[in-house]
Order: sequence, then C-alpha cells, then structure tokens
Amino acid sequence: MLDAEAALAAACASEGLIPWEAAEAIAAQCSADRFDRATIAQEGAPDASPVIPLVRALRDAVGAEHARYVHLGATSQDILDTAAMLVASRALGPILGDAGGAASAAAQLAGQYRDTPMCGRTLLQQALPITFGLRAAQWLVGLDEARLRLEEFGRRDLAVQMGGPVGSRSPAIARRVAERLGLSAPTLPWHTIRVRPAALAATLATLSGVLGKIARDVTLLSADEVGEVREGGEGGGSSAMAHKRNPVGAVSVLACTKRIPGLVATMYASMEQEHERAAGAWQAEWGTLSDLLALTGSATAWAREMLERLEVDPSRMRQNLERLAAAGAAEASDPEEHLGAAGELIDGTLERHRA
Amino acid sequence: MLDAEAALAAACASEGLIPWEAAEAIAAQCSADRFDRATIAQEGAPDASPVIPLVRALRDAVGAEHARYVHLGATSQDILDTAAMLVASRALGPILGDAGGAASAAAQLAGQYRDTPMCGRTLLQQALPITFGLRAAQWLVGLDEARLRLEEFGRRDLAVQMGGPVGSRSPAIARRVAERLGLSAPTLPWHTIRVRPAALAATLATLSGVLGKIARDVTLLSADEVGEVREGGEGGGSSAMAHKRNPVGAVSVLACTKRIPGLVATMYASMEQEHERAAGAWQAEWGTLSDLLALTGSATAWAREMLERLEVDPSRMRQNLERLAAAGAAEASDPEEHLGAAGELIDGTLERHRA
Amino acid sequence: MLDAEAALAAACASEGLIPWEAAEAIAAQCSADRFDRATIAQEGAPDASPVIPLVRALRDAVGAEHARYVHLGATSQDILDTAAMLVASRALGPILGDAGGAASAAAQLAGQYRDTPMCGRTLLQQALPITFGLRAAQWLVGLDEARLRLEEFGRRDLAVQMGGPVGSRSPAIARRVAERLGLSAPTLPWHTIRVRPAALAATLATLSGVLGKIARDVTLLSADEVGEVREGGEGGGSSAMAHKRNPVGAVSVLACTKRIPGLVATMYASMEQEHERAAGAWQAEWGTLSDLLALTGSATAWAREMLERLEVDPSRMRQNLERLAAAGAAEASDPEEHLGAAGELIDGTLERHRA
Amino acid sequence: MLDAEAALAAACASEGLIPWEAAEAIAAQCSADRFDRATIAQEGAPDASPVIPLVRALRDAVGAEHARYVHLGATSQDILDTAAMLVASRALGPILGDAGGAASAAAQLAGQYRDTPMCGRTLLQQALPITFGLRAAQWLVGLDEARLRLEEFGRRDLAVQMGGPVGSRSPAIARRVAERLGLSAPTLPWHTIRVRPAALAATLATLSGVLGKIARDVTLLSADEVGEVREGGEGGGSSAMAHKRNPVGAVSVLACTKRIPGLVATMYASMEQEHERAAGAWQAEWGTLSDLLALTGSATAWAREMLERLEVDPSRMRQNLERLAAAGAAEASDPEEHLGAAGELIDGTLERHRA
Repeated sequence: MLDAEAALAAACASEGLIPWEAAEAIAAQCSADRFDRATIAQEGAPDASPVIPLVRALRDAVGAEHARYVHLGATSQDILDTAAMLVASRALGPILGDAGGAASAAAQLAGQYRDTPMCGRTLLQQALPITFGLRAAQWLVGLDEARLRLEEFGRRDLAVQMGGPVGSRSPAIARRVAERLGLSAPTLPWHTIRVRPAALAATLATLSGVLGKIARDVTLLSADEVGEVREGGEGGGSSAMAHKRNPVGAVSVLACTKRIPGLVATMYASMEQEHERAAGAWQAEWGTLSDLLALTGSATAWAREMLERLEVDPSRMRQNLERLAAAGAAEASDPEEHLGAAGELIDGTLERHRA
Repeated sequence: MLDAEAALAAACASEGLIPWEAAEAIAAQCSADRFDRATIAQEGAPDASPVIPLVRALRDAVGAEHARYVHLGATSQDILDTAAMLVASRALGPILGDAGGAASAAAQLAGQYRDTPMCGRTLLQQALPITFGLRAAQWLVGLDEARLRLEEFGRRDLAVQMGGPVGSRSPAIARRVAERLGLSAPTLPWHTIRVRPAALAATLATLSGVLGKIARDVTLLSADEVGEVREGGEGGGSSAMAHKRNPVGAVSVLACTKRIPGLVATMYASMEQEHERAAGAWQAEWGTLSDLLALTGSATAWAREMLERLEVDPSRMRQNLERLAAAGAAEASDPEEHLGAAGELIDGTLERHRA
Repeated sequence: MLDAEAALAAACASEGLIPWEAAEAIAAQCSADRFDRATIAQEGAPDASPVIPLVRALRDAVGAEHARYVHLGATSQDILDTAAMLVASRALGPILGDAGGAASAAAQLAGQYRDTPMCGRTLLQQALPITFGLRAAQWLVGLDEARLRLEEFGRRDLAVQMGGPVGSRSPAIARRVAERLGLSAPTLPWHTIRVRPAALAATLATLSGVLGKIARDVTLLSADEVGEVREGGEGGGSSAMAHKRNPVGAVSVLACTKRIPGLVATMYASMEQEHERAAGAWQAEWGTLSDLLALTGSATAWAREMLERLEVDPSRMRQNLERLAAAGAAEASDPEEHLGAAGELIDGTLERHRA
Repeated sequence: MLDAEAALAAACASEGLIPWEAAEAIAAQCSADRFDRATIAQEGAPDASPVIPLVRALRDAVGAEHARYVHLGATSQDILDTAAMLVASRALGPILGDAGGAASAAAQLAGQYRDTPMCGRTLLQQALPITFGLRAAQWLVGLDEARLRLEEFGRRDLAVQMGGPVGSRSPAIARRVAERLGLSAPTLPWHTIRVRPAALAATLATLSGVLGKIARDVTLLSADEVGEVREGGEGGGSSAMAHKRNPVGAVSVLACTKRIPGLVATMYASMEQEHERAAGAWQAEWGTLSDLLALTGSATAWAREMLERLEVDPSRMRQNLERLAAAGAAEASDPEEHLGAAGELIDGTLERHRA
C-alpha cells in the first residue's frame, strides 16, 4: 500500500499536479517499518478500510506542508487493489521459481526413467505397461502448462488501479503509476469488473490442481503394497510407529491444494459487484487472495522438494508387472514390446519443455 | 493441544495406566506460555504434524522421570482433533453470545416497529405494504433457527478423539477425556468419518447465511434513494467523500459471510478420507475450520452492533409507499388495511423467541 | 406444484374463503398428466416463473366458474417452495431406504469380519493391525449418523410455504396446507430466510461425504496390489483390457459425491436474498437442489449395491500383515494380540445401530 | 462420441491401420439418430461408461466384416474427452455470438449516453457524478476481456484425446483426429492432467462473472426508488401484482451465474486424478461441464436481450443527482464539471472494442 501511495505521488508530480518535493517527501516516508500494522488494522475497522488510517498516519508522517499531496485524487480501493497486484507480482516470482524447479525435477525423472517399465493403472487397477518416464512426462506437461499460464498472467494481467472515487480519473495517472511499479495499465479502472483477481485465482488453481495430481500419485505409488517410489530426505516420522515412512511432502502438498477450489469459488462468486464499488464482495477478496497465494506457494515449494528427492524403485515396478502378467495381461510379460509410443511421447515432451 | 495432552494423562491415571504423580507433572507443564509456537510450527513441518515437536517439547519439560507417560497410546490426530473441538467449543460461546444479542436487537425492532408500514419488495421492485416489524421478525426467526442449530451442535456433536494410531483404542480413555474436557465421547473414533467437522462448518454457515441476508437488506434499505434505515454510531467515513455515510457494519458482515460457502465446500470435499488416517484431506480441514470460526465470529459481532444501532426512518417508509400508491398499487394508499396477518405473525415470532 | 395448488384450494375452502365445490373442481384437475411440461417451462421464461403459465393453464382447465379460486392469495414462490419441499420429502424415502440398506450391509460386514485381522493404514502407509470388522464399523457409524440427521431433517424441517406476495398472509392457511401435505408449518414464511434449503443441502452432503469415504476405501482396498476386497456382481468390464475388474460401484459413488460440495456452496451462497423475494439467488436454488437430491440418491443406491456385494479376502489381508511384520512392526506378526479394543468397539457400534 | 469414433476410424485408415472401406462403413453409421440414447445410457451403468455399449452397438451396426476396426486402439476416455471438447467447441459458437451481441449493445449504450450524467455509487451510497456511458463502458470492457479469453481458449486449448488405454499411443493418431475434427493435438494425452477442462470452466466463469455484475447493476438501477433503467420488451409480469414490472432478464442471468462458482470448484477439485485414469474425479466432470456450458449459454443469451432492450431514463438520473447535491456533494449540482476523464475513458474503451 505504501508503494502504491509513493508511486501515486510520483505520478502526480510527473503530471504536474503536485510538487516533486512533496512526492519525494512522501516517498521517503513510505516504508513499512515506519508504521504499526496492528494499529492501522484496528483503526481501519470502523470504516471497513485500512487505507483510511494509513493515509492519516502517512499525512502525519510527511508533515503539514505536504500532507495535502498524500493520496491525491485516489480512493481506498485504488490503493488496496494496486497493493494486491503488487503482492501477487512479488509472490509469482518464488512460485514460478519453485514450479520451474519442480518441472526440472520431473524432466529429470522423465529422462532418467524413459525406458523403465511399470504398470499403467486405471481406476486404481493394473492395466497395461507404461514407463515411469511417461508418468513423469505427464507431470511435466502439466507443470509446464500451468507455468505458461501463470507467466502469461504475470505479463498481461497484473494492472494498477487508479480510477479515483468513481472510476472516472484520467488514465494518465494510472499509466504513470503502472510504469513506476512495473505493472500494466488497464483500459478502464476495474473497481467492479473483477476479471483480474478471478483469473489470478484460476491460474493459481491450475498449478495447484497439477500439483495435487502429482502428490496423489506419489501417495499411491509409495503405499507399502505398491512401493514403487519413496520420498527421500529426512522427515516422515510417526509419533507412534517407528517403522513408518510417511509421504510427508505429498501430504503437505495435498493439505494445501485441497483448500484451493473452495477459495476459487469465492473469487468467482465475488465478481458480482455493485455499481462503482461493492458492498462486501470486494472486501471478501482480500483474505481469499492472500490464502490462494500462500497455499499455492507452499504447495509448490513442497512439490519441488518432493520431486527433487523422489527415490524410484525399478525392481518393484518390475515385480508389480509380473503380478499383472500373472493376472492374464500378456503384455506385461514382455512389457518392452508393449510400450506403444511412450519413448517418442517423452522425447517430445522434454523437447517442448526445453523450448 | 496442551489441554488435550493433560486430559489424556489424567485419563490414563484414572485407568491405572500411569501414576497420578506423572499426570500431575504433565498437567503442570501444559500451559501455552511455556512453549514457543513459532518453533513448534516450524519443527512440525518435516513430519506434517505440530504434535510431534509439541510432544517432544512436553517430554523435555516434564523431565526424564515422567517423559514416557506423555502422549501415552495416542496419535497426533487424537490431539489435533480434540484440540479442534475444544477450540470450536470455546468459540461457540462468544458466537452464540453475539448471535443472541443480534436476535434481541431484531426482536426489539420487530416489537417497536410492529405497526410501521413500509414497502414490501420482491425482485427489488416495490410490491405491497408490509411493516418494518415483519421484516425484523424475518431476521429474528432466521437468527433463532441458526442459534438453535448451533446450540444443538454444541451439546451433541463436540466429541473428543482418542482412538490411538489406528482407531482401536479402548473407549474408556475417550470417555474419561471427554468428561474432563466437557466434550462428548463418540461411539467410535472418527479419524476418517468426518461428520462432525463438516456439520460444524454447515452449522456456522447457516448462521452466516442468515447474517448475510440481514446485512444485504441493510445495504439496500440504507441506499440513499431508499433511505429507510441507517447504521448508527461512529464510522462509515469515506477517504474521498465527506457527505457519504457508508453502511460499514453491513459491508463488514458481508465481507465475512461471502467467504463462508467456499470454505464449507472444502470441509465437505474433505470428508473423502483414506483408511485410518487421510493423506491431505484431514490436514486441509485445520486452517479451513479456523477461518470458519473466525469469519462467523466476526460477522456475528458486526451484525449485532449493526442491529443494536440501527436507525429507522418511518417517514421515509411512508414516502416510499406513496410512490407505490402512485404507481397503481391501491393497497399502498391505505397500507394499514392491507397488512394481512403481519401483526399476528410478528407476535407469534416474538413469543417463540422468548420461549 | 399441482399438489400444492390443490392443497391450497382445500385450505382456502376449510377457512371459508372459497366454496368446497371449487376446491374439489381444482383438485380434480391437479394431475400432472393433464399438462404439458415443455409448454409450461417455455411459457414461464418471459416471467422467470413456471407458476404463472401453470396457474393460467389450471384456470383454463377448471373453467370460468372456478377459475378465480385457483392460486387464491398465493404467490409463485409459495407454490415452488412448497413443491420443492414435497419433492425433497418424496426423495428422502428411497434415499433413506438405500442408506439403511447400506448400513445393514456394513453391519453385516462388521459382524462377520469382527475378528479378521488386516493392516490399519495411515497416510496410505501400513501402520498397525486392525480388523476388517472395525473398518466396516467405521463405515456403519458414519452411515448411521448421516441417516439420523436426514431423518431429523425430514421430521422437523420440511415445511410448506404459504406467505402470499410479501409474506404477510395469515398462518392459518399454511397450517391447513401443511396438514394436508404431511409437511410442517413454519413460524413465519421463509421466502428469504433460507435455512431450510441450505440445511437440506448440508444434510444430503453429510450422507454423501460418508459414502465418498467408503467408496474411496473400496477403490484402495481393491487395488490389485492390495487385493483385500473386490466388488462382486456383473459389470466392471473394460473396453480395452479383458483381465481388468474395475470397482465400478465405488467409481460411480465417487462420480456423484465429488459433485456435492460445490453444489452445497451454491446453496449457502444463495442464502443472501433481498427483501421479500430474491432476484436470482432463490432461482439459483431450483436446479441445484434437484441435482443434490439426484446425485445423493444415485450415490446411495450405488453404495448399497457395492456393500451388499462386497467380496472380502481374509487371506490377502493376512499376507499384507506379513509384509508389515517384515518391515519391522512387531505387532503385525501376532496381530490378534494387538487389536486393542477393536472387538469391543465393533460390538458397541452394532448395538447402537440396532437401537 | 460418434464423431470421435468416425474420426478415429479415418485416422486409422490414414495411418494404414485399417482399410479405408472400413473407415467409410464406420463413418456411415456414426449418426446420432441411428442409436437410442436411453438404452446406451442404461447399458453403460454396469461399467460406468457409455462408450462400452456405444461401441458394441456401433460394431453391430457396421456388421461383422468391419466390426473389429471400430474403436481400434482407443479407450473409453479417448472418446468421451474428445466428445466433451467437441461439445464445448460447438457451444462456444453461440456463446461467443451472444457475448458479442451483448458487447455491441453495451458499446451502443456507452456511445449514446457518453455525456449523460448519473450518480456514481459506492457501497450502494450515492458518491459522485459519472455518466451512464461510463457505466456501460465498464460492462463493455468486462465483456470484451471475457470474450477474448474464451476465444483464446477456443483456439488453443480444445484438444483431442487419443492416448489409448494407458496414454502411450502414438501421437500420429491424435494429430490425424485433431485435423479432421478441427481441434488441436496435445503434446501428451491428458487423461489425468486436467488443465483443459478446468481452464474451460474458469473461462466460462469469467464471462459469467461479468454478466452477473451487469445483471446486478440492472436490478439495482431498475429498483423503483432509483428508476434509472428498465428492461424493455414483454414479460416481467407478476402472478399477484399487476403494477409490477420485474427485471426478468437480470433475474434470469443471476439465476444462472450464481450457480457457476460452485461448479468451477468441482472442476478444480477434480484435477486430483489417479495414475492413468481416475476413479471418480474424471466422471464427476461430465455433468459439471455440461451444466457450465448450459448455464453460461443461458446467462449470455438473457444478458444480450436485456442489454439490447434496456430503456434508460436520463431525467431520473438527473433527479437522483439533485438529491446528491442536496446531501452536500457540491459536485452533483454541476455534474458536467466533475466527470473527470469519463468521456476520454469511454472513447478509449470503444476504440479498443472496435479493434
């Protein structure tokens, strides 16, 4: 929020609305450690907006001379929406970093186990042979598609909000603020046209959904009776059973990803916003978007670690194929002959991943 | 969690499994200020359970002599689920207190404005005369139904969890713990039969849904063009427009209630739990349930204040009826003749509220 | 809807508002096969209400003499809400029937396999011995709790709606209609206080959530590598793999239950209804409630069949325990010694089920 | 599904796997009117797949000579997923058509009322003057953003599925099928990587969310006390109150859009799919996706009609501004002086719309 106020002051100075000296004085105070968050949160309650006490405190801080140049022509929602986009922008960096790390780990697995036969399973039943590389390539293609969408969102949809009280402010200010903050400038203020926050939620949920699929597979493949993979690293202990090795990474991923769909529903339901500013639906976005970023971020970090440390057991894969052969699936006796185009598919996926 | 551990130790002593001296030593350490939450949270990550480091720290605290009696026969989920029910139990007190306050305020409005005519409105269009008392009685009946369900839940469904690692522990321990904590004892451990948490979510959401209806009405009735009610008290200021008086209470209620349905979906989706302990679906409940309690609690406190301070404008109600009469609704010219059984309905609602 | 109109006419006659002859003439026409649903649906679109063309058609059918006695004093929502509660009431019969059948099957399994050891599994890892009877008892307790809630709902919450255009109609009419239709009479009309439909959704979702847990267990236990249960009966074929035996019942249960949480969110979000009749939120309930009834009904029927036909393989359970023993869990070598209170817990559950 | 089977046969012929004569014989039978849907639906239940009886019936229809060439190398999910994408592709045409019509109507309103002052409203309170053109431009920008996303999805993400039983089939077949059906070919089969269906749901929900915002505005602006717009055309009657004119289009839009967020949650929750084919999560998508397409389509058609017929009342807008002026907002006395950059913003939006 302080970065948004500072950028606004600079934009106003660039447009000749306030003196540069004022903009600099304001910027000098816009540092989070100068303000007490708890106080501002509490003082914001009576007006349902943390911006009101923040602006008051900022005006106090810059002193009487420049106070009237703080928050010039802006409305609370300008600051909060711009701040939300800044937060999202800053969160996307580490999320994309971890998603990229997870994709690299999946690519490594796809390459290393390109020709390692395992049971393909449908409806949780053994079906026909695949390779573990093909499964890892599936994970990879999901991660790459999700990353692509997040990157596109980051480039295109993270826009400032600077519409003023009823969305009629000159777009010149928004363009200046956008340039300064590294965000884009919207055609119109989007105070009640909530395509951006909803699309951000959906894009995070797409990544989260892919991570949930991967983690679900890891829980199933690391079940004792299957035993084809195992999470490496420390951890996974049980408070009651020493022999156990829990798939802690996968569980932690799922603990996050399972909370995402309900939050996405909240974001879409919140698109129904009244007139020039909503009474409730906008405010419901705040905590929901924070949760979406935090949960997706946690899930991605856990998934990366899980994939980077994954231990694969080709001999158990072979044993499980023998059971399948015994059950009458002739293809499983000689799996290499029945892998279809698995190798070709993996190679194509890896090639596209590298591109 | 510490209360659960202390109750467990006492239960074990009662059943003769550990010395009473040990139980007392454990209880003496079970105080939240003796432990550092951040450390425990962080140390719990590698095993996806905060109970493991807590038990370790508690064992350290009680010393070598009694350490082995800490957490005896229990599993992490026993402690976390019991703690969740304790948290819920403690949160229900203030929630029911505020819901009761809101209901009293609605009852007061229903009585005071029993015979005050206003426009009934359907599909946001003026329809036929009602009284403001009837509208308040609607709010009241919703609050009373929601309170009744929460009270029932509190009496019947808040149960301890003490099943041990795979849910086969003797029910005697659970009964002792339940008695000590003022919760009920379940027929069976409910590690993966999640009727209780889901039903708690639904019961909170029922109250929240009623509050959302009331708050929506207040936003609509306090719109300048309608002007029939207005939130009293301080607050409601605008950072940009001095003439405005925002319905801050109603907005704050809706900011909470709009986040509830998605969280309820998460709780129901999480009922699909595997075997004797779930890999992800249980863990997804933790933060979701906390949010449900906090958001419902906030919404209820705001709604109570909003209703207690609500200012009603009978003359604007009369003016709006005149517009309706002018539009051709003969009933609006002489509203008192067309109020149907409004008075009787209000009286019946108030009577039932008092019972 | 026709049953609601007929009951309304009879109630009006009982109250002396219309002649009994008219009520009888109306009742004689209130038969679904006399009206063309497609036409009524289509003609309802311009007014967003199927009741308007239905009343028109019913008036035509009863003839000029009695036409004015049709739908007397009622509003569209009275008829639709009462009809929804009648539909729910009629659907609860078979749902409770199948849920009872599923519970009986679970009770049968709990008794028959009371002492059959199997691996208890947590986080999908082998943990410690339980019995299959204990697992079935878990299923049973979930089914019994869900059934109890549905029965309570059926007894208490299925109420008629007869409030007239703005909810101010004398409660005497509602009481008469309720008596005639076997539903209860509400304190106040509930046109915009939607506790009932939301609570119905939650109660169906509770049953559905339990069914999803059972079905998830069946998919996991019938995985080839576990092989401890198998769905009996015909079906389960694969279009491509002759050796496969798919857990079709469990998959069909899950195909339904996974759709429920999102629908429940819609019902709770729809509680925010404006004034005396909502503009959209009420109408959004119609199809959602139908889906909830149909999906829960299907899931219950599938679950009953799945449980009634479940084939259990105690020798595979024993083999899997041997693997657990080999992994270092001493308890698994002699499981009968480590079953805790499993038998006692099963007996208590069965006793309560029979009560 | 029949189109998918016909395209598969042609693809197999192109690849030299089956005779062209067989492909032609199969294509000749792939016509929906040759098969009884109810029978196929019913016969699909025991195997949880309608494809199995459809393939059986299709083999019967083509006769013994070509029967073995039907469904060659495919799995049920190949046919169902390809069919789902074809259905989506065919539904996107009319949805985009109506969304384009709605956008044109919004553009027309934005241009026509470019300089017509009205109250801007925040938190449902009168705030400062805007123009009705600016409000319509907001609607327009939302519609245009949503249309752009749907068009992108249609171009890029509608892909065939032809992976065979475990996703290892040569991509050559998928490419041939894609070319024939006008869909794209995926890098890998996406049997359990569900980015596409989830993203389709999100993209539909984005349009739906914008429509919900517009419809909410129409209900508020057409409230009698505001009276600034009114839905034109027939319809909007009340079964009980002759003077009423209900905003039927807006209500019908909201009746659809309010059901979307919960369905989106189901689609994202369903991304957690096991191994090579999911046990339940995939099947849960079927009806959900149909509902999303139907509800978004209905909402869009209603919104287009509502906007095309919207009647605007500039004199009521002026009267409401006078009330605002009386309340102390000096800007409202001379609104033209305080419209900020409204005109410039509208022009920019219209220019971008035309591009």
